[in-house]
Amino acid sequence: MPRREVFAVAQLGPIHLADTKDAVVARLIEMLREAKGRGAGWVTFPELALTTFFPRYLYDAPEDYDVFFEEGLPSPAMVPLFEEARQLGVGFYLGYAEKVEQDGRTRRFNTSVLVGPDGKILGQYRKIHLPGTKEPIGDPEFEHLEKRYFEVGDLGFPTFATPSGRVGMCICNDRRWPETFRVMALQGAEIFMLGYNTPTRNIHHAEPAHLREFHHSLSLQSAAYQNASWVMAAAKCGAEDGFAMIGGSMIVAPTGEVVTRATSEEDEVITYDCDLDLGAYLRRTVFDFARHRRIEHYGLITQQTGIEVPK
Amino acid sequence: MPRREVFAVAQLGPIHLADTKDAVVARLIEMLREAKGRGAGWVTFPELALTTFFPRYLYDAPEDYDVFFEEGLPSPAMVPLFEEARQLGVGFYLGYAEKVEQDGRTRRFNTSVLVGPDGKILGQYRKIHLPGTKEPIGDPEFEHLEKRYFEVGDLGFPTFATPSGRVGMCICNDRRWPETFRVMALQGAEIFMLGYNTPTRNIHHAEPAHLREFHHSLSLQSAAYQNASWVMAAAKCGAEDGFAMIGGSMIVAPTGEVVTRATSEEDEVITYDCDLDLGAYLRRTVFDFARHRRIEHYGLITQQTGIEVPK
Repeated sequence: MPRREVFAVAQLGPIHLADTKDAVVARLIEMLREAKGRGAGWVTFPELALTTFFPRYLYDAPEDYDVFFEEGLPSPAMVPLFEEARQLGVGFYLGYAEKVEQDGRTRRFNTSVLVGPDGKILGQYRKIHLPGTKEPIGDPEFEHLEKRYFEVGDLGFPTFATPSGRVGMCICNDRRWPETFRVMALQGAEIFMLGYNTPTRNIHHAEPAHLREFHHSLSLQSAAYQNASWVMAAAKCGAEDGFAMIGGSMIVAPTGEVVTRATSEEDEVITYDCDLDLGAYLRRTVFDFARHRRIEHYGLITQQTGIEVPK
Repeated sequence: MPRREVFAVAQLGPIHLADTKDAVVARLIEMLREAKGRGAGWVTFPELALTTFFPRYLYDAPEDYDVFFEEGLPSPAMVPLFEEARQLGVGFYLGYAEKVEQDGRTRRFNTSVLVGPDGKILGQYRKIHLPGTKEPIGDPEFEHLEKRYFEVGDLGFPTFATPSGRVGMCICNDRRWPETFRVMALQGAEIFMLGYNTPTRNIHHAEPAHLREFHHSLSLQSAAYQNASWVMAAAKCGAEDGFAMIGGSMIVAPTGEVVTRATSEEDEVITYDCDLDLGAYLRRTVFDFARHRRIEHYGLITQQTGIEVPK
């Protein structure tokens, strides 16, 4: 029997500083219903989906940036979304800023949660590859102070059994690192879900603008192909208070082909009827890990962090 | 001072069973001169560049397939090429079937050699990711008996200092595995050279034909971008005694962009004037390995070979 399921990606247009979380959650719920109406069993929402991309701004005191963070799961702001999804029977991935009391102190992470179609919380992922800097680089258009507001994730790259296959989660900059997807695929993940907030201009370099979208797409397509898995990628995009971010939300098949993509930089739902066994032929042949991987020659990948030129 | 150098990729059209090695080496020399005439300091030749892609045929006795192998470096057949390259002052990568007495026995590898512009042999690479099977699958169009004729390479993924930057080598199917390029990049490789023989039709599955070329290109482009390195990829292509292989020889910039590619399935030289520092901005920022890689979360990549679904 074919394993087919309609998946949706819900792209968010800009969220401005002045927008309330209630207003944002209403937009998420509208897209959730739209996805359900098109037959989707799962929806992927973006990274930090409840607020503007606040790491572009400099704050010093926790009381000044705590407003962007969520406590509890669901947090009070999330409750209407969780409730609606449970009633509709739609599972989802949602990115948010997490504040948690853990190890006797307050900790903050850039987090995503996976909720099943039955409303059960399947688990969390906390972003590992935090881009940017802790201190400002001096150009407000390009600030990306994620290392200031978040700790590096402490949950590894967990994967979760769902009625539609094994799902792995990552967030934004994680997608540029092939290690991210390989670790999830080695656990049997068949579907990667991720959200992102990616500036339209490169933060650190006068790089041609077309490369921003190309690198995004290249990263997702190679991750899909090399791991024979589906990729669901949701942007928050458009200009938030004047700061532009790319759209390009997409679903990528295990063949590496982009099978649907958003064309706007606004709220937009895309869906695709996914054959979850499409990657099976690749896993049996060219990417049969057990038969072909040669871990005895991969040692440097986990032995050293940076480049070390041999003598 | 900008570090610029013209690199060439020399694609080979078909080599039939009846073709002699001398005739093939004459073709290689012609392309070497063509490359030199266009200012190239380096040429990348294909995998198993001296004979037809013989692993598509079934042989039992070593005396029946030894004719495809080279002994010594340069082997007698290679001497004219090595001599011409030294005289022209052009460095090169050459793929060949290697037969060697080692560890008290005869060993065979799918090998490449890197020779400097001064004629000095810089080193060898022996293919690690051998595709296909040891025993025939029963369909002569798709046989790929590399595991029959070659041992898995025993040299890791070595890299070599050259006057034009640090060079890493791999071969054909290695390019589908991100581990290949990461191990070389962690040693400081800035230029990846590789040759390939890739059937136009998928060996194991009725896969749409356009995917063969797409997966080739996707693998090279992601390898280049994710490691901020140049990729030089040389096909042996066209129909060898009726068995078709893809062309698509290309040079890929550290941005992941294909900057030049072959259009034929015949002998064809492509060149590009490469800025060897083009990847430097990526290595300083998004792909500053030392600052951003999180090896504590990559453990599975080297701990387990196949998929192990968590309990």
